[in-house]
Amino acid sequence: MVFKNPEAITRIASIGGGPIGGGWTAHFLARGYDVVSYLHDPAEADAFREIVDTAWISLEALGLEKGASRDRLTITSDLAQAVEMAEFVQESAPENLGLKQALYKQLGNLVPETVVISSSTSGLTMTEIQADCATPERTVVGHPFNPPYLLPLVEIVGGDKTSRDAISWARDFYQVAGKAPLVLNKEIPGFIATRLQEALWREALHMVANGEATAEQIDTALINGPAPRMAMFGQCMAFHIACGEGGMATNLDQFGPALKLPWTRLEAPELTKALRDRMVYGCDEMAAGRRFEELAAERDRGIVAVLKGVRAARA
Amino acid sequence: MVFKNPEAITRIASIGGGPIGGGWTAHFLARGYDVVSYLHDPAEADAFREIVDTAWISLEALGLEKGASRDRLTITSDLAQAVEMAEFVQESAPENLGLKQALYKQLGNLVPETVVISSSTSGLTMTEIQADCATPERTVVGHPFNPPYLLPLVEIVGGDKTSRDAISWARDFYQVAGKAPLVLNKEIPGFIATRLQEALWREALHMVANGEATAEQIDTALINGPAPRMAMFGQCMAFHIACGEGGMATNLDQFGPALKLPWTRLEAPELTKALRDRMVYGCDEMAAGRRFEELAAERDRGIVAVLKGVRAARA
Repeated sequence: MVFKNPEAITRIASIGGGPIGGGWTAHFLARGYDVVSYLHDPAEADAFREIVDTAWISLEALGLEKGASRDRLTITSDLAQAVEMAEFVQESAPENLGLKQALYKQLGNLVPETVVISSSTSGLTMTEIQADCATPERTVVGHPFNPPYLLPLVEIVGGDKTSRDAISWARDFYQVAGKAPLVLNKEIPGFIATRLQEALWREALHMVANGEATAEQIDTALINGPAPRMAMFGQCMAFHIACGEGGMATNLDQFGPALKLPWTRLEAPELTKALRDRMVYGCDEMAAGRRFEELAAERDRGIVAVLKGVRAARA
Repeated sequence: MVFKNPEAITRIASIGGGPIGGGWTAHFLARGYDVVSYLHDPAEADAFREIVDTAWISLEALGLEKGASRDRLTITSDLAQAVEMAEFVQESAPENLGLKQALYKQLGNLVPETVVISSSTSGLTMTEIQADCATPERTVVGHPFNPPYLLPLVEIVGGDKTSRDAISWARDFYQVAGKAPLVLNKEIPGFIATRLQEALWREALHMVANGEATAEQIDTALINGPAPRMAMFGQCMAFHIACGEGGMATNLDQFGPALKLPWTRLEAPELTKALRDRMVYGCDEMAAGRRFEELAAERDRGIVAVLKGVRAARA
């Protein structure tokens, strides 16, 4: 299958009139694409434009692509018309398997096979969604994070019938389109980011249920503790840097026993040599030869910027 | 027990020559205090000054208090001299229970009873630490988050013998001293922030152990997904705002069943009415009458600032 060069894409179809579909539409417009948005009900158009207008304030603040304009948005409730000229389709229909399967059956015939169709689904798998699609090879999951016009993450994973080429193409395209694509190794429930967030969320609910913390205490702890650091470096690199020259190896070798402590209700995995080595290798790769002092200085510059930014946004 | 007015405090003793003790010293100097730092070994002084100097770069960027100066630091290896004039003691000795108990036994006699002694411990409880202290009422935990000179969080909790007044005083003092104090309802292992972080961390290790993700994929997911949002609003308010006018009530009532999904290895608590109501009440309190649209706009301004700040720090 020969896909078009990701850098040559100019026309996008965005399916869905809710906050996710609207967020994607705003993002693609801000990056200078022509966008046709499909709404199930024409009566949703005003609310939809409001979502786009709200997002536009932030997108302008981050910087628009040259030529980007909301005038390049077309709204339609005719699915065939929505995808007619599309070189990429972002689908953000409601999270209902039957509905999505029926939609992909239609899209599978309407959209040329060389056009990738990407689903914003957060809870379904592409293997399920593509079941009734006659041309499933080019269907992928491209899961954004809310709000999708601001947070760069897009988690990409195929279903059983998805081709590797479609996944590679989606990754390249999202990169060109100003997103941070993350290709998953396998279809896992919740993908990566939601699983991490959900573990934290469940521990938070346990604490509230047990009277150990309130919602406000949890948010205060996050905002003033791990979050500003995590916005600059993820948790792996945060621990890597915190351990000085020894890095992640020191963290796991020295603090490994802490995994057995009841510091959350989540049981830790066995810290095998294979797991240890994977973590150490992964952090060394990310450090890319930078010394501990350089990384710590970069972390600190990032935290300072985050704290100043948040301070200004609250003022 | 009559403690001194927190706003009248000018002289602080900081015990410990490692990154936590050094970070606290730098923070208090930047806030305009006189600080006497106790190092176990005089040979540590150069390395200690380097920690302070490194922290100073970031503290200057965030803005120093009037009169703040590194010239107001005294270093000593004489414990009695270190605490002689102190109106507040921050203890960051190694995480060794026997060592801390012996230290608090000494401090309990050296330091006047009207001076609060606060421990940076992350893994021990004050009930254990204060066991051999003759004057334990004024001893508390004041647990910072790494790096302590930048992240504002200080988790405060007493031991069995700690007085309520000492806890209130510590909260007021840390607030005056430019920190974000969080008083815990009870002594729980890992306090609040570390429990949340640890749940996320354990799920990350599970994914790496299972070949579902690499360290780099985990960090990419966090940096580009939940973290920038969490730096502005915590996870509770993030969900509250994401659900529009219905807020946290909609989140729990509608997505409650998702707690049963295998979206992490952490089992969720039973979503009882009491838990639901506590979460809803907590978020309503934090919203403090602000409408959904206002909160979402504030969130977006915060994320924009975080993304721009991190972008600049990486450049």
